[in-house]
Amino acid sequence: MTTFSEIATLLEGQAIEVPSWAYGNSGTRFNVFGTAGTPRTVEEKLADAATVHRFTGLAPLVSLHIPWDLVDDFAALRRYAEDLGVALGTINSNTFQDDDYRLGALTHTDAKIRQKAIDHHFECIDVMHATGSRDLKIWLAEGTNYPGQGDLRGRQDRLAESLRTIYDRLADDQRLVLEYKFFEPAFYHTDVPDWGTSYAHVAALGERAFVCLDTGHHAPGTNIEFIVAQLLRLGKLGSFDFNSRFYADDDLIVGAADPFQLFRILFEVIRGGGYGPDSQVAFMLDQCHNIEAKIPGQIRSVLNVQEMTARALLVDSSALAEAQESGDVLLANEILMDAFYTDVRADLAAWREERGLPANPMRAYLESGYQQQIEADRIGGTQAGWN
Amino acid sequence: MTTFSEIATLLEGQAIEVPSWAYGNSGTRFNVFGTAGTPRTVEEKLADAATVHRFTGLAPLVSLHIPWDLVDDFAALRRYAEDLGVALGTINSNTFQDDDYRLGALTHTDAKIRQKAIDHHFECIDVMHATGSRDLKIWLAEGTNYPGQGDLRGRQDRLAESLRTIYDRLADDQRLVLEYKFFEPAFYHTDVPDWGTSYAHVAALGERAFVCLDTGHHAPGTNIEFIVAQLLRLGKLGSFDFNSRFYADDDLIVGAADPFQLFRILFEVIRGGGYGPDSQVAFMLDQCHNIEAKIPGQIRSVLNVQEMTARALLVDSSALAEAQESGDVLLANEILMDAFYTDVRADLAAWREERGLPANPMRAYLESGYQQQIEADRIGGTQAGWN
Amino acid sequence: MTTFSEIATLLEGQAIEVPSWAYGNSGTRFNVFGTAGTPRTVEEKLADAATVHRFTGLAPLVSLHIPWDLVDDFAALRRYAEDLGVALGTINSNTFQDDDYRLGALTHTDAKIRQKAIDHHFECIDVMHATGSRDLKIWLAEGTNYPGQGDLRGRQDRLAESLRTIYDRLADDQRLVLEYKFFEPAFYHTDVPDWGTSYAHVAALGERAFVCLDTGHHAPGTNIEFIVAQLLRLGKLGSFDFNSRFYADDDLIVGAADPFQLFRILFEVIRGGGYGPDSQVAFMLDQCHNIEAKIPGQIRSVLNVQEMTARALLVDSSALAEAQESGDVLLANEILMDAFYTDVRADLAAWREERGLPANPMRAYLESGYQQQIEADRIGGTQAGWN
Amino acid sequence: MTTFSEIATLLEGQAIEVPSWAYGNSGTRFNVFGTAGTPRTVEEKLADAATVHRFTGLAPLVSLHIPWDLVDDFAALRRYAEDLGVALGTINSNTFQDDDYRLGALTHTDAKIRQKAIDHHFECIDVMHATGSRDLKIWLAEGTNYPGQGDLRGRQDRLAESLRTIYDRLADDQRLVLEYKFFEPAFYHTDVPDWGTSYAHVAALGERAFVCLDTGHHAPGTNIEFIVAQLLRLGKLGSFDFNSRFYADDDLIVGAADPFQLFRILFEVIRGGGYGPDSQVAFMLDQCHNIEAKIPGQIRSVLNVQEMTARALLVDSSALAEAQESGDVLLANEILMDAFYTDVRADLAAWREERGLPANPMRAYLESGYQQQIEADRIGGTQAGWN
Repeated sequence: MTTFSEIATLLEGQAIEVPSWAYGNSGTRFNVFGTAGTPRTVEEKLADAATVHRFTGLAPLVSLHIPWDLVDDFAALRRYAEDLGVALGTINSNTFQDDDYRLGALTHTDAKIRQKAIDHHFECIDVMHATGSRDLKIWLAEGTNYPGQGDLRGRQDRLAESLRTIYDRLADDQRLVLEYKFFEPAFYHTDVPDWGTSYAHVAALGERAFVCLDTGHHAPGTNIEFIVAQLLRLGKLGSFDFNSRFYADDDLIVGAADPFQLFRILFEVIRGGGYGPDSQVAFMLDQCHNIEAKIPGQIRSVLNVQEMTARALLVDSSALAEAQESGDVLLANEILMDAFYTDVRADLAAWREERGLPANPMRAYLESGYQQQIEADRIGGTQAGWN
Repeated sequence: MTTFSEIATLLEGQAIEVPSWAYGNSGTRFNVFGTAGTPRTVEEKLADAATVHRFTGLAPLVSLHIPWDLVDDFAALRRYAEDLGVALGTINSNTFQDDDYRLGALTHTDAKIRQKAIDHHFECIDVMHATGSRDLKIWLAEGTNYPGQGDLRGRQDRLAESLRTIYDRLADDQRLVLEYKFFEPAFYHTDVPDWGTSYAHVAALGERAFVCLDTGHHAPGTNIEFIVAQLLRLGKLGSFDFNSRFYADDDLIVGAADPFQLFRILFEVIRGGGYGPDSQVAFMLDQCHNIEAKIPGQIRSVLNVQEMTARALLVDSSALAEAQESGDVLLANEILMDAFYTDVRADLAAWREERGLPANPMRAYLESGYQQQIEADRIGGTQAGWN
Repeated sequence: MTTFSEIATLLEGQAIEVPSWAYGNSGTRFNVFGTAGTPRTVEEKLADAATVHRFTGLAPLVSLHIPWDLVDDFAALRRYAEDLGVALGTINSNTFQDDDYRLGALTHTDAKIRQKAIDHHFECIDVMHATGSRDLKIWLAEGTNYPGQGDLRGRQDRLAESLRTIYDRLADDQRLVLEYKFFEPAFYHTDVPDWGTSYAHVAALGERAFVCLDTGHHAPGTNIEFIVAQLLRLGKLGSFDFNSRFYADDDLIVGAADPFQLFRILFEVIRGGGYGPDSQVAFMLDQCHNIEAKIPGQIRSVLNVQEMTARALLVDSSALAEAQESGDVLLANEILMDAFYTDVRADLAAWREERGLPANPMRAYLESGYQQQIEADRIGGTQAGWN
Repeated sequence: MTTFSEIATLLEGQAIEVPSWAYGNSGTRFNVFGTAGTPRTVEEKLADAATVHRFTGLAPLVSLHIPWDLVDDFAALRRYAEDLGVALGTINSNTFQDDDYRLGALTHTDAKIRQKAIDHHFECIDVMHATGSRDLKIWLAEGTNYPGQGDLRGRQDRLAESLRTIYDRLADDQRLVLEYKFFEPAFYHTDVPDWGTSYAHVAALGERAFVCLDTGHHAPGTNIEFIVAQLLRLGKLGSFDFNSRFYADDDLIVGAADPFQLFRILFEVIRGGGYGPDSQVAFMLDQCHNIEAKIPGQIRSVLNVQEMTARALLVDSSALAEAQESGDVLLANEILMDAFYTDVRADLAAWREERGLPANPMRAYLESGYQQQIEADRIGGTQAGWN
């Protein structure tokens, strides 16, 4: 069995990207509950994100969403973030909130609307130049609600053409990351419903196009770690959107619904070379804190990823390989479970303290007074949300 | 094989209840697209609903939702509806949009919040007295998002107590109908997730408490017609919320996703005595027209129910029973399918004309100018939606 | 936080019932792989089951399946078991392997076949008298494959009548336990597909009729611990069939697919009064060891239940209740997770040694030579399986 | 609206491949029910298959399964089939019933077992040369049951190597068709679980490697017609395994569970160029007639495909395209549904008579005396099944 001290250094440098929108209000189609202290501006979102990083050391990057996070001067925003100790990360486009996109954006039958959606991505690329972001992430919220509504095949062809145009606009050090999603907001078909579709498109685009795997975007029962292993094997795993789910795209805190699944995913990430200093995989959160406190929700999330990463690193790989080779089903399973069942929390607390971080980031945050401060300060204005 | 003429009279009197909110805007958590002509007031919703009835003869009742449809004078509203040729139907309560209800309403740990939710239902009962509505429908949007968040058992006990208090307030000719839902807006557990839970509660309440079956509120793969048969057998099927789904609670047009399922459901309704003049079952729509035209969407919906009812009535019951008795699997299946595959549309068109209705209600509506009129008239104000 | 020493005595007396058929061969419809050492007789199955108990102290009861375990003298079998240190437990009936039952048994349209199935249950009750078993467990493998094949309603009525006849035959200290299953071997509908149906039947039967909850018999996404809580609340949880699943009724080792789910289930068992000396709930395994070693597979299973029971007992109930009352979502969740993430394995090893059991039952078994002995001894004959 | 006469000639030449194993016994893991008249030999299976073709004109090809259909002289078998009026079609390999394959075949860690599995495919290719079959179909029944049991990544690499070796053995006019399956008989992961994995492998292999789409092998809710459209777009749809399902891989009669889904699939086949004389797509059945009569079950199946093909051909494509272009959601849906709801059965009956086929193949078969004859003739011997 591997010991914690053997993996301690491997935990250094772990970087989880937090989404700016996790600090704003979110909800379901039925209601959005507002909360005291919610940011009104991008700067306040960044301040909250930086707070998560300050207490955990795990979240040095912040994803932005355009147009939710549009500012006049992204270079200034970049400096603002850096002053807070964080950097700006992935840029997320949005083609689902404009009336023109009711029936599609990059796949729309109307060339003018397609061009509008493409132009929006050009704008995002401009933002990337200013922020120094590497990745343009495209979540295609389009699809159809009724059989016959759209031409499934024609939409694919238009999508391929639109993506090509966007891809060709990228600089050499920029990447396009294409997210797939099983359903929602479209209910009959989505234009990129599965990893296979995303893979087929990014494989056609070129070597700087990758797949984004959102852990909540699969059919019930899907073995997600298999997809992780497959995409790493194919060299096309670009990024994760971490969250967890019991039913649909619930966007709960990563690791909350099925901790063992998160463990298996991270084990395959490590197994397939996706973890560590040479990895090109971005590890983002994409969550909604509808009813729970947002900053603590993010702290819990990055800690969950860290704890499960530690457990996954603890797997005795050579013993496991030996058991697998010998066909000892129960022993191989036991070796994996041994690591999962190991309680790493005390070791991680010590590890943090050695690095100048609070042993218990959650308690430290709650006692810091930050929450009380923002609740006092952030009076008036319009709380940030999905708009 | 049964012929259409044999069932023609059985189609008379079919009444589908349409929801006031189907005429307002709706959407997903990502966006709500507005549309020209959307009602701003309850009266305008009723006008649209009455239009659906005028063209189809199928929709003489309109469900209201409180507080979305709150007016000062419900007696006046009732007369307004009657003048339009429709009646007010089921009253739907709402305990999911007030900040107090973030963690529960009828199940909340705080007795004051529970009382507030109970009082809201008392208010609904008052409305029922004014509108002449028979049914109080309770959809319990409550539940929890994270394991541990709530005490599953304690919530059930509080729910039972709250329901008892509401039930006892009903007049002798009023009913309580309890809807169940697999998930959403809660993502870890819902307090009434399945028909079994709803049945256990309404069985405990008394003979005027029933289950509401929303066709979109089940786990993937659930055999809904079995539940219909079972609830009719137990004497506890109170009402339907019709819609259709491919994935979750998509709230698409009834019959759009799986016409054969709708056929099987209606067949079990008829088989179990739930159809016809003596039936106590309410047949409601509960749908969202997020991207399609709303009034035509409702027309399509009631026509779908009528067409499938006709097909289900066409099943040769005695031949079917004989094949079932003899164990001829393929013949029994074929007898059922014969009815499903029968094209009843021409017969229904003639049936309508005989009764002074347009042969093709959809075309008649589109050519009537009503849509153009409301788009011209309903300028300004706030379009109705889920608030 | 509760400590292990505070719960140590609560772990005493935990009894898990193992199924005789887990020691025989099993497989999928595609193949059954045989393994060396598989029992040929009921007595050999009992010897293997007793071995599991000897190494774990957790499995003092063995479920039998009729006719797979039919012997001429059940009184003698009972003494044989007792000499091995185990007792005979639940009696399981079988109405799915006789040609007569192709289209149904207790629900069949033919009264003669129904009576045959009822008589089989009478025979099982006779066995119970001889074995001293408390529970007659009925898993209804019946249903239909094609819409129209059977009369859903008529089958329910016949089922109710058949169950009544069987129930009335039970002695005062015997119970009827009705298992439900979502699908398989029937593919369109099963006659007892969900807990609601089982509950409706056993509630009608009387106070000695209960529901059996097989953890693998639910639709995707079903919240099983909710059903546990509900059935305990209704006083109708009779027994568990433990196993785990990723997709359908995979019958994998309990806790293997989703350890956190097993934890939540056991937490609700404890919360609802289903655990401990006064509980009337039977905790059985119902698993298939298709590709892994069978006796070690059973040892792993009972250990998984024990480990998760320990974790569930560790939950600080009063702190949890306080967090729930105060609406602190993240704290309540954290209190639950604290227990789940606690590594109880070393404490349990010490606990076992104090009680004269091997610290590591799995290693002790593997080193005991038992497996080598049965592989040497059990040559010739017909290996036991599902027939 | 397109009329039947406009599409009549397009229905000519439709060829559905029937599987030899559909005529033998099958069942679930719980039981296989035998039936009178079941073939004992490959020749008798072919006779039954030829009977299906004789009454329907739709089933001129028969798939074989090796080793279930192994004979000494495949050239003679080919002549035998041709004399019956049918040809031998796809050759299906089997790597799931030998004890060596318990933990894998083409992916096994042991090179000797991998080679054995490869050699089996070489043997299948030899059969293909004798039978004149074009397609070697590989359904990979392998995977793992427990996390950790196997190395997901290593298994993919070994699979790729094994497939390469097999592919290189094919003649220039032979194809490899790789089937994917979500789960079963493996329960934690399957090595080719989805179309994306199959596509990635066949794309790497070369232009004579294709994907086989079994309609029952997907996660709940999967939009299968989207995959059809995508694979046709990518030029990689090799063949269908038709059947239908409510839950898992139920292998029910195609079109029985969801006729509208079959319609949508066939519509996309036509839309994407997969139907007609130039198509390279093989349309096979892969079904189990566990409880219903087998030959009538196959007749019903091919008729279902024919009827739905006719309906799909009836879609007014230009009107549909226009409605799609204009964004008229309801009209586009209505145009599709118009074709689906059209009752083509009388037209098809006339179409058959014009071509010398019985108007009602099912009745003609039932009255032909064939069933009585085989029940009388096929006494003794061992009925064919999955072994």
